[in-house]
Amino acid sequence: MPSYTAPLRDMRFVMFELLDAMTELKTLPAHADLDIDTIDAVLEEGARFASQVAFPLNGIGDVEGCTFHGDGVVTTPKGFKEAYAQFVEAGWPSLSCSPDFGGQGLPVLLNNRLYEMLNSANQAWLMYAGLSHSAYECLMTFGTDEQKRVYLTKLVSGQWTGTMCLTEAHCGTDLGLLKTRADDNGDGSYALTGTKIFISAGEHDVSENILHLVLGRLPGAPAGVKGISLFLVPKFLPDANGDVGARNTIRAGSIEHKMGIHGNATCVMNLDAAKGWLIGEPNKGLAAMFVMMNSARLGVGMQSLGIAETAYQNALAYARDRLQGRSATGAKQPEKPADSIMVHPDVRRMLLTCKAYTEGGRAITTWAAQLTDRHLYHPDAKVRAEADELIAFVTPIIKAFITDNAFETNNLALQVFGGHGYIREWGVEQYVRDARINMIYEGTNGIQALDLLGRKVLHDQGARLRLFGGIVKAFVEEQADKPEMREFVGPLVALGEEVSKLSTELAMKAMTDADEIGAASVPYLRVVGHLVYAWLWARMARVALDKLDSGDDFYKAKLATARFYYAKLLPETAFQLQAARAGAKSLMELDAALF
Amino acid sequence: MPSYTAPLRDMRFVMFELLDAMTELKTLPAHADLDIDTIDAVLEEGARFASQVAFPLNGIGDVEGCTFHGDGVVTTPKGFKEAYAQFVEAGWPSLSCSPDFGGQGLPVLLNNRLYEMLNSANQAWLMYAGLSHSAYECLMTFGTDEQKRVYLTKLVSGQWTGTMCLTEAHCGTDLGLLKTRADDNGDGSYALTGTKIFISAGEHDVSENILHLVLGRLPGAPAGVKGISLFLVPKFLPDANGDVGARNTIRAGSIEHKMGIHGNATCVMNLDAAKGWLIGEPNKGLAAMFVMMNSARLGVGMQSLGIAETAYQNALAYARDRLQGRSATGAKQPEKPADSIMVHPDVRRMLLTCKAYTEGGRAITTWAAQLTDRHLYHPDAKVRAEADELIAFVTPIIKAFITDNAFETNNLALQVFGGHGYIREWGVEQYVRDARINMIYEGTNGIQALDLLGRKVLHDQGARLRLFGGIVKAFVEEQADKPEMREFVGPLVALGEEVSKLSTELAMKAMTDADEIGAASVPYLRVVGHLVYAWLWARMARVALDKLDSGDDFYKAKLATARFYYAKLLPETAFQLQAARAGAKSLMELDAALF
Repeated sequence: MPSYTAPLRDMRFVMFELLDAMTELKTLPAHADLDIDTIDAVLEEGARFASQVAFPLNGIGDVEGCTFHGDGVVTTPKGFKEAYAQFVEAGWPSLSCSPDFGGQGLPVLLNNRLYEMLNSANQAWLMYAGLSHSAYECLMTFGTDEQKRVYLTKLVSGQWTGTMCLTEAHCGTDLGLLKTRADDNGDGSYALTGTKIFISAGEHDVSENILHLVLGRLPGAPAGVKGISLFLVPKFLPDANGDVGARNTIRAGSIEHKMGIHGNATCVMNLDAAKGWLIGEPNKGLAAMFVMMNSARLGVGMQSLGIAETAYQNALAYARDRLQGRSATGAKQPEKPADSIMVHPDVRRMLLTCKAYTEGGRAITTWAAQLTDRHLYHPDAKVRAEADELIAFVTPIIKAFITDNAFETNNLALQVFGGHGYIREWGVEQYVRDARINMIYEGTNGIQALDLLGRKVLHDQGARLRLFGGIVKAFVEEQADKPEMREFVGPLVALGEEVSKLSTELAMKAMTDADEIGAASVPYLRVVGHLVYAWLWARMARVALDKLDSGDDFYKAKLATARFYYAKLLPETAFQLQAARAGAKSLMELDAALF
Repeated sequence: MPSYTAPLRDMRFVMFELLDAMTELKTLPAHADLDIDTIDAVLEEGARFASQVAFPLNGIGDVEGCTFHGDGVVTTPKGFKEAYAQFVEAGWPSLSCSPDFGGQGLPVLLNNRLYEMLNSANQAWLMYAGLSHSAYECLMTFGTDEQKRVYLTKLVSGQWTGTMCLTEAHCGTDLGLLKTRADDNGDGSYALTGTKIFISAGEHDVSENILHLVLGRLPGAPAGVKGISLFLVPKFLPDANGDVGARNTIRAGSIEHKMGIHGNATCVMNLDAAKGWLIGEPNKGLAAMFVMMNSARLGVGMQSLGIAETAYQNALAYARDRLQGRSATGAKQPEKPADSIMVHPDVRRMLLTCKAYTEGGRAITTWAAQLTDRHLYHPDAKVRAEADELIAFVTPIIKAFITDNAFETNNLALQVFGGHGYIREWGVEQYVRDARINMIYEGTNGIQALDLLGRKVLHDQGARLRLFGGIVKAFVEEQADKPEMREFVGPLVALGEEVSKLSTELAMKAMTDADEIGAASVPYLRVVGHLVYAWLWARMARVALDKLDSGDDFYKAKLATARFYYAKLLPETAFQLQAARAGAKSLMELDAALF
């Protein structure tokens, strides 16, 4: 019963009108020849695959789930394997990968929109392919030539898929505690022994081989995070031709029964002297894994953005059709037994919240993709480095702010459906359950907030924050003499000043009490997330104002959504600023035994 | 794996220390002889039943769900029927019912705490009994002597259970659209024909008979809500002795597959000339149903309060046990591989949010129960009437504010568990799913907000709000010269003034644009909910301050939680006040077609 139509118009708006992506791509030698028709064609084909192949399997995957057959064998829901084969056949995994390894070399910008659509269609299914790209990035950076030769082309084609094996039963956030042991086989390989849990797509039947990226400890390695190394442990060892060879001794021990993403197998993985090879340097595994992790964190933001878009679309369709009650200002459809619930201000509040957060999420993730292309391909090293700093700054925001906003969006979408929202067949309750994991995995949202405030802002004395502030300032100065922009520029400037003051205050407080960072970090992330969205929404309003007379109603909607965002959502910062400033005392004074 | 221990200490605190319930009960002739030992004994026995009988079935009910066997037969999960038999055997259904019909005549205050515990244990199971009490209240008010004689004792004993049959596929909120037809049989009974959906406990095997309270239309009744009548339609018609007789033609057509409360059967009910009797006057069915509905709304608040308490308890236990990372201010358990996550400020923020909202919810619902006893039993008619006004005022707050806060609580509890929170066996993800319905049924939370602002505040020109304001004022004046209370009294007074100003502003705005009410109602309810909680938390702080030197650490925890509430949660009002004042324009200006 639910449906999904890719929001191509809004994607084009963000890429070409808001971010002027074509102009920038021309400055990147790798993409200078790319034309807009190619991008459009790829997007349309991706939209078709998402809505026609992946989306129809979403509800099936939820109901059927995965099956553990014992002896390490896991099968996926009906249709998943075939859809993955079509995905590989069409070349989607290779879209933005390097041509050196069989990739199509298209911009990350484009791949990012493809992943939004695929996540809108079916997060659980996409997760079989999702970590392959992160594994690809990790091997591109740290793999030996031999590793690249044997494994990268298979990851790029999608023939083989990747996983991240970090968590153990006693350690998730605190990886320093991990125990998996890697003994030297004396032939350049290692024998890994241990048990990993919560391994997404750890075992399945969609690809012919699975490449596990596993954190473990070498004999005699230092305790804690400084003794962690990263290993590549394939399910099947490659034979002399690089094809699937002998079965390795890494096996699924069971799969989890979860709140959602039932279509994806979350596995306990037992390693019994499984053969693996070091990726990067010994004891530097965490740094190598963080290349994969940062990519995955951006990916998690995309998961929630995708699902939220589908939730919004379906709630909107329901609201338009559902006749219930009359407008408080008099019947709007007097010929019908009742008005559409679109007449009720609070239904509109819910839908506009979904719309403003989803379109804001599309803008920030597209911007991050643009920054990634700039970081990868810009000829000027300084520009590349600056892009990298900005990506580091927005990564925790994309991971946490989007997944939190999407959870609100999915819940509001469910609420718009009334009682029907609670019933499985309408689909929306699945979105609430599926997207709930996104606030947890790849670093909980609490960890993201610590990353933003502690590592990304305070650790470099606010340099990254000032870098972003400079971009906002340039925009504000450009708009300073435009009366039609005052309603946006005023609050944006005020919030920017508050963030700057708050950051300084927290830096001072943290000098006398390290707990002040953790006490403020979550509200701080909400405030900074809103600053980025407020900047993007002001820019979107600017574009819309310029084209308001074009006759295209799209710009009317964009401007109205910007105004709604500023009127009804941005004021959350008044709350979060107070909460961020309220300090650690009320959190820390109560003895843990007295809770 | 999850566990539940009834919070008897906090219940006693709220009843006897905060609300001085024993003193008040002495002034009510019906309860003047009740002693505290009886209350304690009942609470302890109730706690035992909840944790030992109902709670162990909660996870089973979720996994197994109900089964529809065709031909209107529905069975409940393993153990549900037996637990219900024990519940009836122990006399729990009759606790606060009238002795005239076999009830024990104990205070609502006590029944209310019993229901908190039972909801903490197993909402889905309790719902088989839950609406019986609402049906009891409706029949007590509107039933004929004959109806009372035949049905009330069976409801009181729990031998028969009740349902509310309101919703039809095309109408939920807008009951004026309902179509179920009631034809006059000419013998004082009616033949009801139609289809009802979303009927909780509409069919099951736990009780020997089910009394359906059904909204329908008499022939020639006016259109809309003025043509709705209420009927009593039993599953089995009572025979001459009042025992179960012939099967009536009201049958379950199917059961819904839902996000949660799997253990409760949500039924489509088909009425095929089912025999029923009018309750109250023709065409005045909605007023009669509202007696039941208001009772049910208070009950829904109890459902979410109960589940949130269990979610909090389990998250707290997990956080105490889970060793992960080190305190930012230096290791607190250096002898262990890591510190308990209780050292992290953000984990404490999550747990204290759960604690403050749950204990606040316990205070407001216990106060409402005290008001109900006052309304039912106080010798002075003016006092009774005033209590009734206050109940009307807090009902939408208890329904919406508690269920929203509990959803946040359940989600934060899940988040405290990290990845384990997403896994079924830990139990907490079920609480998120189960309690999600509470924000929807018995009038969505959006409808509650309209009820509060439109009907409860603006409709009587703020009289009820001033009545409550007078209570707050009296407390504030009492505390005015107490420096130790300044941190609470200051913000409480400020918020009271804001609510008063905001209410006046909205009344003015609504005169020129009726949509201003729906545009402000949801944030308005959040603000007024916080005003009530701020008053209760200030009072709780007062009691705690007075007993801080008693040597009982309970008061330290209470005071710390009050301070946390004022520092970290109450500031939400800064956001919601802005949102409430931001008006209807940004919601209404966009054409529905352009969303």
